[in-house]
Amino acid sequence: MTQFRSSRSEMSLGLFLLGAGHHIAAWRLPEAPPNAAVSFPHYQAIAAEAEAAKFDAIFFADSASVRDFGISPIDRDERSIRLEPLTLLSALAVSTDRIGLIATASTTYNEPYNLARRFASLDLLSGGRAGWNLVTSANAQDGPNFSLEAHPEHGVRYDRAHEFEEVVRGLWHSWEGEDAFPLDKTGGQIFRPEALHPLNHKGAHFAVRGPLSVPPSAQGHPVIIQAGASEAGRDTAARTAEVVFAAHQSFDEAFAFYQDVKRRLAAYGRAPEDLKILPGVSPFIGRTRAEAQASFDELQDLVTPEVGLKLLQPFAGGLDLRDYDLDGPLPDLPVTTNAIGRQKLLVDLARRENLTIRQLYLHIAGARGHWQLIGTASEIAGELEHYFKNGAADGFNIMPPALQRSLGPITELLLPELRRRGLFRKDYTGTTLREHLGLRRPDLPAFPQFAA
Amino acid sequence: MTQFRSSRSEMSLGLFLLGAGHHIAAWRLPEAPPNAAVSFPHYQAIAAEAEAAKFDAIFFADSASVRDFGISPIDRDERSIRLEPLTLLSALAVSTDRIGLIATASTTYNEPYNLARRFASLDLLSGGRAGWNLVTSANAQDGPNFSLEAHPEHGVRYDRAHEFEEVVRGLWHSWEGEDAFPLDKTGGQIFRPEALHPLNHKGAHFAVRGPLSVPPSAQGHPVIIQAGASEAGRDTAARTAEVVFAAHQSFDEAFAFYQDVKRRLAAYGRAPEDLKILPGVSPFIGRTRAEAQASFDELQDLVTPEVGLKLLQPFAGGLDLRDYDLDGPLPDLPVTTNAIGRQKLLVDLARRENLTIRQLYLHIAGARGHWQLIGTASEIAGELEHYFKNGAADGFNIMPPALQRSLGPITELLLPELRRRGLFRKDYTGTTLREHLGLRRPDLPAFPQFAA
Ligand SMILES: Cc1cc2nc3c(=O)[nH]c(=O)nc-3n(C[C@H](O)[C@H](O)[C@H](O)COP(=O)(O)O)c2cc1C
Ligand SMILES: Cc1cc2nc3c(=O)[nH]c(=O)nc-3n(C[C@H](O)[C@H](O)[C@H](O)COP(=O)(O)O)c2cc1C
Repeated sequence: MTQFRSSRSEMSLGLFLLGAGHHIAAWRLPEAPPNAAVSFPHYQAIAAEAEAAKFDAIFFADSASVRDFGISPIDRDERSIRLEPLTLLSALAVSTDRIGLIATASTTYNEPYNLARRFASLDLLSGGRAGWNLVTSANAQDGPNFSLEAHPEHGVRYDRAHEFEEVVRGLWHSWEGEDAFPLDKTGGQIFRPEALHPLNHKGAHFAVRGPLSVPPSAQGHPVIIQAGASEAGRDTAARTAEVVFAAHQSFDEAFAFYQDVKRRLAAYGRAPEDLKILPGVSPFIGRTRAEAQASFDELQDLVTPEVGLKLLQPFAGGLDLRDYDLDGPLPDLPVTTNAIGRQKLLVDLARRENLTIRQLYLHIAGARGHWQLIGTASEIAGELEHYFKNGAADGFNIMPPALQRSLGPITELLLPELRRRGLFRKDYTGTTLREHLGLRRPDLPAFPQFAA
Repeated sequence: MTQFRSSRSEMSLGLFLLGAGHHIAAWRLPEAPPNAAVSFPHYQAIAAEAEAAKFDAIFFADSASVRDFGISPIDRDERSIRLEPLTLLSALAVSTDRIGLIATASTTYNEPYNLARRFASLDLLSGGRAGWNLVTSANAQDGPNFSLEAHPEHGVRYDRAHEFEEVVRGLWHSWEGEDAFPLDKTGGQIFRPEALHPLNHKGAHFAVRGPLSVPPSAQGHPVIIQAGASEAGRDTAARTAEVVFAAHQSFDEAFAFYQDVKRRLAAYGRAPEDLKILPGVSPFIGRTRAEAQASFDELQDLVTPEVGLKLLQPFAGGLDLRDYDLDGPLPDLPVTTNAIGRQKLLVDLARRENLTIRQLYLHIAGARGHWQLIGTASEIAGELEHYFKNGAADGFNIMPPALQRSLGPITELLLPELRRRGLFRKDYTGTTLREHLGLRRPDLPAFPQFAA
C-alpha cells in the first residue's frame, strides 16, 4: 500500500493562542497577564512575535458559551471569558502583515450566508490571509444559547456541516471570469454582470440564493480547516478540508490518522497535497532537560484538583468526577455522541499508562489532550522531524503552554534548530495563507489590488 | 404640551461612510477610489480624518445580499459589493483611538447570542466605542439568502426585533457587582462566581440560557441605535434605543418626528435625554453657493437613467419604473409592508414638489432620501443650528456625498463654523462612545483595564 508523507521539504507551523497559554494554569504564572483571555494588547504582542518568527498562521479555538457554566466551578479557568475569534482576528489583521489568521466558527450555530460573508470580508481586508476552522461545536453547552433544547447529535451536526460547507464554498465561488472587475469609471461599470451568478442552493438544511456580495481575495477564498477526529470528522476532512488540526498522543496514532485521512482523498478526486495535516503539540523547552521539566512542574503545581476535575469533565462524556477517588482509576464513562474523539483519547490514555484520575487530569492539564513534549530544542526538533519525515504530519499546530514564557524558547531555540535542519522557512516567500501552506489558489478572479 | 429640545449645548455628529460616498455616482469622480466599497485603506484613511475632526462616531449601513440582484442591472452601483460591517469595524478599532464605531446588524437574520457576543467583543477591544444599529432589514432580497421563502412581514420582523433586543441586552447584563473581577492569581480566581448569572430567557422567538462569555467594556455595553421610521419603528426606538438615525426632508417633518419619539419615552420610564435623535444630512458645501451647486451638478450629471431607476425601485415598493415615462409623474405604487417609511418619503416628495420620475431619482440620488443641503458652510451651519435649537435634532448623521471631495469642506469649513457658534466640541472629553454622546453608562462592573 502507498505510504503517504509530506510533499514539501519544509513544515507548516501554526500557533495556537488562547488566553495566557495552552496549559490551564498559565494565567497564574507571575509574568502572565491575568486578563489575557480578553486582552487585545496581549494578543497583539503575541501575534507580532509569531509573525516575526514566520509562523504560517495564528489560530483561535472557540465555543459559544461560558465554559462549564452551571456544571462545575466556573471562576477558576480564564477561558470562561473570551473574545469572539473573528472579531479579534479582524483587529489583528491590521496589526499584522503576512501571518495567516485562522478563526474557529461553528456550522451548528451559524447561518452560512453570514459566515461566508464575514470570512470573505476578513480575507479581502487582510490581503488573503484568512482561514476558517470548521467545527460542529464540541461543547454541548452551546445549544441552550441558540433556542435548542439540546445540542444536536453528532451525526446530525456533521450532516448539517457538509451542506453548510457546500453553501459557503458555493457563495465564495459567486464570481468568475478573468475580467470580472473592470472598475471602469467612464463606462460606469464596477464589475461585469456575467461575472456574478447566484448559487440557488436548495438542500435538506438550507436554501440560499446568493450571490455573495464580497469579491474574491488575493488567495481566492479563505482556507478551510477542519478539526474532527471521528469517522464523520475524517470524512468531512477528506471531502472538504485543506488543513486538518489533529490531536494525538503517540507517533503510531498520528501515523495511522495521517495515512487514513490522506488515503480518503482519492475518493473525492483530491491529491494528497491538497490537504495538510497538522497535529497539535505543546512543547516545554529548556536548555537542558531538567530546565524543561522544572518549567513543566511549576505549571502542574498550579493545578488544583477542583480545576483539574473540571478540565477532565468534557473528556469524560460530561461525568462529574468529584464523586470518585482522586487516586483511583477512571470509572466507566457514559456513552457520548458529542466528542467521541476526546473520550477515546482519555480512555486510551488511562488504559495505556494505567493512570489515576489525578494523574489523568494533570496529564490533560499540560496539553489538553494534545501531544506534549518536554526536552531540549534539539530533542523536540528531532521528534517533530521524525513525524514530518515519516508520514505522520505535514507540520504542526504549536500550542505554547504559557505564551509569555514558552514563546521565547520556541522562537529562539526550537525554530532555529528546525531551520538548521532545513525544516522551516527563514522568511515568508508569499503573502497569502495559501502560499504559506503550499495550497492551490482556487480558480477565482482576483479583485484589483487596493489603493487608498 | 411640553416641547422637547436638546439638553446639551453641543451637538453629536456621526459620519456615515459606505463606498466612495453617499451620492450614488461618487465613485465615478476622478479622485474617488473605484474600489472604495471594499477597500480597507480607503476606510482607514477616512476614519482617521473623522477622528481628527472629533466626530462622535463612524457608521456603517448594511444589507446581507447583493443590491437588487436579479431585479435590475447590478454592475453599475458600487454598493453591490461591500464588506461585512462588524468585520470592518473591528479592523478600524485598531487604526483609531477615540471615535465611536457603529455597525448595522439585522435582528431578522442573526442569532442574538452571536450578535451579543460579537458586539461585546468589539466593545471590549475598542475600549468602549461600539454601537449596534439595530435594523429589521429593509432589503427584502436578504430573505432568500437565509432559507426563507420570503422576507418576513414588517410586523413579524419588529416582533422578533423586540425580543431579540431584550435577549441581547440581557446577555450584556450577565455580569454584576463591584468586585466582579478579582483576577487573583494567588487565590486562582478570575471572577467571582456570584458575579455571573444566566439569563434563562424563554420567549416566542428565542430560548437563550446565557450567560455571555464577554465581560463588560469601559462603557458597560454597546450603545443601541435604531433606524426605523414606521409606527413600530418609533415604538422600538422609544422602548430600547439610545440613538435614532432618522431620515427627513423638511424641518416640519423632523420636528414632528423628534417631538413624537421623545414624547413616547415617558411611557417606558425613560427621560428625554436617554435617547438622542440624529437625522441624516448630506451637505454640498462650497465657499460660495455657486461652488456648492457646481459640485452638486457634477455628481448629478454622472447619474444615468438606468442607475437612477434602480435606485428608485426600493422606495417604490419594488415597482420597476422602466416601463413608465421618465418625464411623467410617479404612478400608483404597490402596497408595501417592507419599507413603509421609505415609500411614504417618495410619495410625499413627489406630491409636495410635483416631481417627474427623472426629477425624483435625481433628487434621491443626491441624498438617498435623506436631507440634502447645498450652500456655504455658514448657511448650512445655520440650518443645523435651527434644527438643533428648536426641537428637531440632538445632532446629525453626516452623509458626505463624495468622501474624497466632501470631507475636506466638512472638516475645514463646516465644523469650524459650528465650533465658532459653540455647537460642536473642540476635542473629545471622554474615551467611550457613551461619553461622546452624553449617554448614561449602564450599571455594570468594569473589567480591569488592559495591559499587554
Ligand atoms: C485539534 C482540535 C481542535 C478543535 N477545536 C474546536 C474548537 O475550537 N471549537 C469547537 O467547538 N470544537 C473544536 N473541536 C471539536 C471538533 O470540531 C468536533 O466538533 C468534535 O471533536 C467532535 O467531533 P469528532 O467526534 O469528529 O472529533 C476541535 C477538535 C480537535 C481535534
Ligand atoms: C436612516 C436609516 C438608516 C437605515 N439603515 C439601514 C441599514 O443599513 N440596513 C437595513 O437593513 N435597514 C436600514 N434601515 C431600515 C430600517 O431599519 C427598517 O428596517 C426599515 O426602515 C423598515 O422599517 P420602518 O418601516 O420602521 O422604517 C434604515 C432606516 C433609516 C431610516
